[in-house]
Amino acid sequence: MTILGLHYIGGKRLAAGTPLNSVDAVTGERHPVSFHEATDAEVAAAALAAHRAFPALRATSPTERAALLKAIADEIDALDHVFIAAASRETALPPARLEGERKRTSNQLRMFAATVRRGDFFDVRIDRAQPGRKPLPRPDLRQFRVGVGPVAIFGAGNFPLAFSVAGGDTASALAAGCPVVVKAHPGHMVTSEYVANAVERAIARCGAPAGIFNMVFGTSTAGAALVRAPHIKAVGFTGSLAAGRALFDMARARPDPIPVFAEMSSVNPVFLMPSALSARSAQIARELAASVTFGCGQLCTNPGLVLGVRSPAFEAFVAELGTALALAEAQPMLGAGIRDNFRRGLARLSEVPGIEALMSMEVEGRVSGHLLKADRSLLFAQERPLEEEVFGPSTVIVALDSEDDFLAFAERMRGQLTATLMADDSDLPQHAALVELLEGKVGRLLFNGYPTGVEVSDAMVHGGPYPATTDVRGTSVGSAAIERFLRPVCYQNYPDALLPPALRERNPWNLPRLVDGVPTRDAPLDARSLEAAA
Amino acid sequence: MTILGLHYIGGKRLAAGTPLNSVDAVTGERHPVSFHEATDAEVAAAALAAHRAFPALRATSPTERAALLKAIADEIDALDHVFIAAASRETALPPARLEGERKRTSNQLRMFAATVRRGDFFDVRIDRAQPGRKPLPRPDLRQFRVGVGPVAIFGAGNFPLAFSVAGGDTASALAAGCPVVVKAHPGHMVTSEYVANAVERAIARCGAPAGIFNMVFGTSTAGAALVRAPHIKAVGFTGSLAAGRALFDMARARPDPIPVFAEMSSVNPVFLMPSALSARSAQIARELAASVTFGCGQLCTNPGLVLGVRSPAFEAFVAELGTALALAEAQPMLGAGIRDNFRRGLARLSEVPGIEALMSMEVEGRVSGHLLKADRSLLFAQERPLEEEVFGPSTVIVALDSEDDFLAFAERMRGQLTATLMADDSDLPQHAALVELLEGKVGRLLFNGYPTGVEVSDAMVHGGPYPATTDVRGTSVGSAAIERFLRPVCYQNYPDALLPPALRERNPWNLPRLVDGVPTRDAPLDARSLEAAA
Repeated sequence: MTILGLHYIGGKRLAAGTPLNSVDAVTGERHPVSFHEATDAEVAAAALAAHRAFPALRATSPTERAALLKAIADEIDALDHVFIAAASRETALPPARLEGERKRTSNQLRMFAATVRRGDFFDVRIDRAQPGRKPLPRPDLRQFRVGVGPVAIFGAGNFPLAFSVAGGDTASALAAGCPVVVKAHPGHMVTSEYVANAVERAIARCGAPAGIFNMVFGTSTAGAALVRAPHIKAVGFTGSLAAGRALFDMARARPDPIPVFAEMSSVNPVFLMPSALSARSAQIARELAASVTFGCGQLCTNPGLVLGVRSPAFEAFVAELGTALALAEAQPMLGAGIRDNFRRGLARLSEVPGIEALMSMEVEGRVSGHLLKADRSLLFAQERPLEEEVFGPSTVIVALDSEDDFLAFAERMRGQLTATLMADDSDLPQHAALVELLEGKVGRLLFNGYPTGVEVSDAMVHGGPYPATTDVRGTSVGSAAIERFLRPVCYQNYPDALLPPALRERNPWNLPRLVDGVPTRDAPLDARSLEAAA
Repeated sequence: MTILGLHYIGGKRLAAGTPLNSVDAVTGERHPVSFHEATDAEVAAAALAAHRAFPALRATSPTERAALLKAIADEIDALDHVFIAAASRETALPPARLEGERKRTSNQLRMFAATVRRGDFFDVRIDRAQPGRKPLPRPDLRQFRVGVGPVAIFGAGNFPLAFSVAGGDTASALAAGCPVVVKAHPGHMVTSEYVANAVERAIARCGAPAGIFNMVFGTSTAGAALVRAPHIKAVGFTGSLAAGRALFDMARARPDPIPVFAEMSSVNPVFLMPSALSARSAQIARELAASVTFGCGQLCTNPGLVLGVRSPAFEAFVAELGTALALAEAQPMLGAGIRDNFRRGLARLSEVPGIEALMSMEVEGRVSGHLLKADRSLLFAQERPLEEEVFGPSTVIVALDSEDDFLAFAERMRGQLTATLMADDSDLPQHAALVELLEGKVGRLLFNGYPTGVEVSDAMVHGGPYPATTDVRGTSVGSAAIERFLRPVCYQNYPDALLPPALRERNPWNLPRLVDGVPTRDAPLDARSLEAAA
């Protein structure tokens, strides 16, 4: 396949902006083909193409939309070792990890195909007319949910497939009936071009309009233009707090503000109960070290803060954790920028009085586990140094005075993606208050597990209160991610022929419906009304 | 009952701020009791009381929560003629209208009680563990939705009951398990005190903590403090575009931005098809005049823009509409401020070149129907003068050149709460393109009806794209309003005893659940797993 380095705009390939380069994550060597920063005009053209394709995508039946998602999944699966090598070159991620991510990405698309076929996301509600109601008749009211319109999606650096061009945001937007304009992450542009071509092949195979998928290359300049483009109606983003908040502020400052789901920052605290530590501190230390260093720590759910009550068992745990982190294999990070950022984050932490670097491993640019220790008082410091995410394979341990500190920290903690409780079943009841506090602060609560390795399924939540995300009501992983891009619409007294199929009397799409307050799949709604109409 | 003029803060009554007065809407006479602008400390105390009551409300079972909503409904119903007289004094709304609104308000609370009992809003999703899955086991994942936390609610001036202290925002927030802090509308503070007392009686009767309902009096100063209060986690508002956008901007500028649902501005366009006009122009004119002047035009869904193709039938319609509007009974508006604002809005419109006031009625401070006529070109003007809401009994008619203008306007129209199509069944197919455009622009599409008179039911949508609201994904009327105040939470591998009841294996609340992708109400999930546990 020939890499062109051009944007994808309504089925056309073009680029007129300044050059951008794809570099080898390890050697820094440039790819021979130049990419280009999208100009404002190119961004606007991509948003317009998405806008024009919106009616066609919105009108697709669940069967058609599911077929499209499945076709994309098949094309992703068909990306071969040449693709894996290209992605590994740009991200330094090992081929085995990328192969796993490829499967995760296609499975995610298939999950959304199943979600679309299930049809509950349409949330069809029908309140039938009551012409004889006193004092006033009730009209016929029919509500369902439609896509909000074209969605801007920002590829994430750390998941070149699963959170990027055809990742969860794109899959959920398409499932909701929303065309997308992806801004490819500058860290893996060749990878993005491969995936975009796979998406285009699937779209062509399904006979869908090319404009449902658009992609531009660029930096934060193109990203800002995209969020401000009038035809864009929502934003999906995964990345840093600074970048996410900037996009959020831009979107809300528009003449017509639009919803933004930015998944940004989390230290994913782990609460180690004395019972668990006394029973299996060495095992937890080894497993936790594996979670901290998985993917070279470049995961949103990396456990970056570990709390335990001061005790001999806790000291043994810390020693074991340090050893396990030191033994973890050193790996290259996603790129020089990420590595420099990691170093800066560690340095910033180390300069805080009361934080001590216990262990630090970096060999010829490859990094391994890092362990820091912080004074208990820093959990309650105004500046919250322990809640600043450091993106990489590091974690901070804190020795607490008593179990009351767990509650005190949970009470004042900022929003997080996850919180993990390590405890023995025997002392569960005493943790109810902690669980209740954590439920208000995080999207996902884990028990005796590790937050990395986010399952893609109906029940997953990858979200949480700010600054974990900009919208606590959403998740960016799992089938509920579709909800972010839907809006309700009601038809009052419309003749059946003018209603969208989802709302028609005979329920041609066989959707679950709430009829006069009763959940049903039956159609027609009422034998008598049909008789009367006959 | 003695009016105290004090705030409601966690069951306490106090007020230390500057005085505010309740005035007679017609005479301007002051009520003998002074109310008070809430101080920052009082607002913070109210938010803290709500925060403290949150765990108790969140933990209520559907049965308990429904009982609370029903108890409030009963207390609202029991508000007698003394209350109606007080409300009529403050708002100039006729007693019959207020009695109807009282019933609407209690019915709304009962609808949310039914919604809570139905339990689908919990959106329970269970993906059971698959310990043998390759390459990795799947954990047990259980998701449901919980309230976002304390909600700030702004009473609306035009519905002293249904969109105020115990109106739709409060009912949906409580149904979601969120305590509220209401800022009473300064236009009906005595009314608000009566309703707040009714809510307090219901809460006491149910044995719920007083802090689930708090209310402060005040102007935009107290409102700003409320939106910025750290314990407030969402905002519900109905009112003007200027005020709604200001609150929205404040909420999004917080260190931790929070969701805002502000229902603000809509001209609710009516599209008159030639077929309908030729068949029944006089009837439509009379019915439309009744909709324009209903409640003295002080409704969010007031039809403020009427479009028809130039023709003799259209001219006859305009003449009939003018007559019907002139014959409408003159009524006092909600207060002098609203009336002055209405006059200013009409003057602003009349000064636009191309707009002509056809008919204007005001008698001794009482206003009747107003009709204006605008050049077609103004539909497409940069400043959108015809999409500026004028709050009161007025409407603007526009003669179009052809039916193509319907499409052209719908394409560039801003977001609206409603759009109405008047057409004969015979020429339906040719309107499909118009309906498709309107679906993207409004929350509710009406066919041969009138947008005023918003039904409170499962299928209603009272929302729409900006500037109709600040969040296109919500509705402030109907049972789906509860969705605005919910967030998803996932429990991973939690022992049953530590799970919230909604997620427990035996389904003690008998909730509908999505189990491994299949909707079911059954419990236990799996006979074998229970056998194994026995």
